[in-house]
Amino acid sequence: MSGWLCITGLGPGDLAQRTPEVTAALAAATDLVGYGPYLARVAGHPDARRHPSDNREELDRARHALTMAEAGQRVAVVSSGDAGVFAMASAIFEAIEHGPSAWRSLDIRVLPGISAMFAVAARIGAPLGHDFCAISLSDNLKSWDIVTTRLAAVATAGLVIALYNPQSRARPWQLGAAFELLRQLLPATTPVIFATAASRPEEQIRLTTLAEADPAWADMRTLVMIGTAATRIIARPDAAPFVYTPRGMSAA
Amino acid sequence: MSGWLCITGLGPGDLAQRTPEVTAALAAATDLVGYGPYLARVAGHPDARRHPSDNREELDRARHALTMAEAGQRVAVVSSGDAGVFAMASAIFEAIEHGPSAWRSLDIRVLPGISAMFAVAARIGAPLGHDFCAISLSDNLKSWDIVTTRLAAVATAGLVIALYNPQSRARPWQLGAAFELLRQLLPATTPVIFATAASRPEEQIRLTTLAEADPAWADMRTLVMIGTAATRIIARPDAAPFVYTPRGMSAA
Repeated sequence: MSGWLCITGLGPGDLAQRTPEVTAALAAATDLVGYGPYLARVAGHPDARRHPSDNREELDRARHALTMAEAGQRVAVVSSGDAGVFAMASAIFEAIEHGPSAWRSLDIRVLPGISAMFAVAARIGAPLGHDFCAISLSDNLKSWDIVTTRLAAVATAGLVIALYNPQSRARPWQLGAAFELLRQLLPATTPVIFATAASRPEEQIRLTTLAEADPAWADMRTLVMIGTAATRIIARPDAAPFVYTPRGMSAA
Repeated sequence: MSGWLCITGLGPGDLAQRTPEVTAALAAATDLVGYGPYLARVAGHPDARRHPSDNREELDRARHALTMAEAGQRVAVVSSGDAGVFAMASAIFEAIEHGPSAWRSLDIRVLPGISAMFAVAARIGAPLGHDFCAISLSDNLKSWDIVTTRLAAVATAGLVIALYNPQSRARPWQLGAAFELLRQLLPATTPVIFATAASRPEEQIRLTTLAEADPAWADMRTLVMIGTAATRIIARPDAAPFVYTPRGMSAA
């Protein structure tokens, strides 16, 4: 059997931030699987078949990709950013665990990519310069209670927070509720960053404070980053300020 | 002034996981600055000057790099993994904030890289498939109380934990103390991964449980990853098991 399955992270968008091993796997694949707008970012082999799908069909897409690899095809599943971060990799392994045992013997590799939070961090300085976390604000697959419990825990503990999936048409109030919660736990001046399409031509980055943060500035493609009481802003004469979180801190 | 400063993340080691923009910046630099073993991984321009330094002199190294960029040199500061994750980027911005105001006008860019936790995750499946955090176990720059408060908060809240800087000759007991704490909060069967030199020829990855985890398996180059009660292991007939954390979970 010569088929394989590569679960690839495309990075944030700019090809200069895509790793060579991902680019090589995409070029070698006979079949490209993923959410339509991500597939559109892949050149791939001219003869490769493309299997675009809706954003919500992750498990179906995973089974389809595994079935093709089992049939001997060379399949690249694409995710934006890193495939292991709120993306396709976990869905693939969930399908494997509950699927035919033959799938466990397939040649399966995960190829990491630059996740959105690192692309955003790099564009503005070093906001993730100390302990940090990544939390999905989607309550499609977990309860809202779990989301708020986690947000309160990490904010109180002093971690920088990267919020993925902050908002969508079907989840319009969650980001506002998250800000309300965080305002009770963190200083009003805590830096908050809204970043959409980091590293791409349509990039939009907005720096504000927790007091001023407006959920209307986010959509489903936005990454929202919330600093800590220690996060610093460095003003610059003719450029956007730098934001960084110092490596050290005084004892609590 | 034609000088610039690029703060670059080399990725975990394998050149196929280094981004093209980092490779290009390293080739264009007149001066390469960083911890000696990391500099050894950089080809760079044949005429480039190399400024290796000790691992502990981050702020001095940052000021040196900024001084050279101010003098018109093209300086690449190198970190392993991503420069914004427990690495040089934060030290550079700290030096800028407290340094001469002219440094704020320099051409400074951060170029992201594949951080160790994503390289490790990709090698074993998708352990970071849900909410997760990165915590440095070093108490050189923060108190041990803060470390344990954070560990307890994130473990109780159900985040996967990536532990950076788990152990060194000067910090021999901290990882054992962290395991003791986590054993009181998480099931004994919680998967724990020790990974050293992920993606490099000398790679060592060991999968165990929280009950069995032995601090002696880690050194200063090891990343230790601790799953949650939901993290799954998929046995395979002739290969190492996959480890993943499902996207969804039942309500608490």
